[in-house]
Amino acid sequence: MKLLRYGNAGEEKPGLLDSAGVIRDLSAHIADIDGLALDDKTLRQLATLDTSSLPVVDAPVRLGACVNRVGKFICIGLNYADHAAESGMAVPDEPVVFMKATSAITGPNDVVIKPRNSTKLDWEVELGVVIGKAASYVALEEAESHIAGYCVINDISERAFQLERGGQWDKGKGCDTFGPIGPWLVTRDDIADPLNLDLWLKVNDKTFQQSSTRQMVFGPAFLVHYLSQFMSLQPGDIISTGTPPGVGLGQKPPLYLEAGDVMSLGIDGLGVQQQTVMAWSATP
Amino acid sequence: MKLLRYGNAGEEKPGLLDSAGVIRDLSAHIADIDGLALDDKTLRQLATLDTSSLPVVDAPVRLGACVNRVGKFICIGLNYADHAAESGMAVPDEPVVFMKATSAITGPNDVVIKPRNSTKLDWEVELGVVIGKAASYVALEEAESHIAGYCVINDISERAFQLERGGQWDKGKGCDTFGPIGPWLVTRDDIADPLNLDLWLKVNDKTFQQSSTRQMVFGPAFLVHYLSQFMSLQPGDIISTGTPPGVGLGQKPPLYLEAGDVMSLGIDGLGVQQQTVMAWSATP
Repeated sequence: MKLLRYGNAGEEKPGLLDSAGVIRDLSAHIADIDGLALDDKTLRQLATLDTSSLPVVDAPVRLGACVNRVGKFICIGLNYADHAAESGMAVPDEPVVFMKATSAITGPNDVVIKPRNSTKLDWEVELGVVIGKAASYVALEEAESHIAGYCVINDISERAFQLERGGQWDKGKGCDTFGPIGPWLVTRDDIADPLNLDLWLKVNDKTFQQSSTRQMVFGPAFLVHYLSQFMSLQPGDIISTGTPPGVGLGQKPPLYLEAGDVMSLGIDGLGVQQQTVMAWSATP
Repeated sequence: MKLLRYGNAGEEKPGLLDSAGVIRDLSAHIADIDGLALDDKTLRQLATLDTSSLPVVDAPVRLGACVNRVGKFICIGLNYADHAAESGMAVPDEPVVFMKATSAITGPNDVVIKPRNSTKLDWEVELGVVIGKAASYVALEEAESHIAGYCVINDISERAFQLERGGQWDKGKGCDTFGPIGPWLVTRDDIADPLNLDLWLKVNDKTFQQSSTRQMVFGPAFLVHYLSQFMSLQPGDIISTGTPPGVGLGQKPPLYLEAGDVMSLGIDGLGVQQQTVMAWSATP
């Protein structure tokens, strides 16, 4: 199933994408796509619906983030060996963990605001893991059952804020609009192998990132297991699993986003995002 | 006003502490103490209530975190010059920012769980700042008006997870029960000068931290101003403003918490917390 949220920002309704690529409304069946709707039982019930009987949503329509009320937006750093190398950092012995502010979350095709004083705005296509069942001290072999599904995430980063303004990375990761999520939450039964998905990102139609989740150091199930040793994960929490090589910071010389630039990015089976960069002063 | 939340975990009701120290129920006037209730208008309306007419809540009663539905739990590192010194780190040129998982939030007197494999469990008394009005690119002179009030926070930390397990601090800051908040949210009109409050923390009745917010490097208004340059702050967000010297990591030799240890901590006018440490395996 490809679950989604459609409508104006803050007023999104739940929906799904049917096998013909048509958006269907789910409002009669669930209140929202959020932690309350991501347990296996609810997902199974939704899967039994006759999608052809669901109301068609006329395109074009804005898509919101495919999960609402995200409690924790946890990110994994340096989780592709080649990306660690281009960042000039060692491959970590165990996952590097940081947090994105949940207020950074936006729809997959919303504008990305270049913050005031931003000089090093960068992109990172990532596989997102959405928690469906609470997880605390979960064994590795049980971990996958806590995953509701997967999605595309652009872990937008401001490298000067992240790396040159003191101490920790979070400052350059949580700016408003730095977390496009979606277009769809694809349930885990629809993804045969999350460790065999091609992912890519282009800026202004030039390919910068092109890799496969086969290159990941720590896979989704391991990350759920690992993180659950440090904190409980709740339904609707999201783990962004790190980015492959090709970010702006890794170019020679480094290349950063300017207003008007267009990012497009996607992952096999999980859909495509597209964002235009807008300077903060142009914010409505 | 001293706002609070009382009742069993997950079922707390809003209340206030009256001038005689009696808890009064506010359920008839607001749904909860959260971002929806922290704007100046709502707080002014609550302040006009005749507290003697509000239902008395019989003591003893459990207190929950004094704010519900915290969107962001932002922490400032090394914000007391002496604490930076005891941690062997330089006083930062600008605030060090990291995040605590909101799932770490607990009531001020709940047990603190020592996580599995924890060997360096530590304490940090901190002044908490609760946002009342959304803040984005706020000027310094306007920043205080975005603060609803103040509270006591114990920024519980696992130093091995934080400092010895790779990369970023968040891993050792967000464990479940690592964020006791309360007992009260004291509205800003009741705090004459947030930069002149004594704060202290004892473990098993021995004083380890004893300082004043006068020693803070970056004060609450500056922090609201500063953070709002990087991300928007929403009503109900909390900023924990850093800890003074005397943490376990700073003892010679370092001293960490064990099951059965009791922390008590407080800040002038903001009340007192007390937590007993429990090993994770003893979790009900």
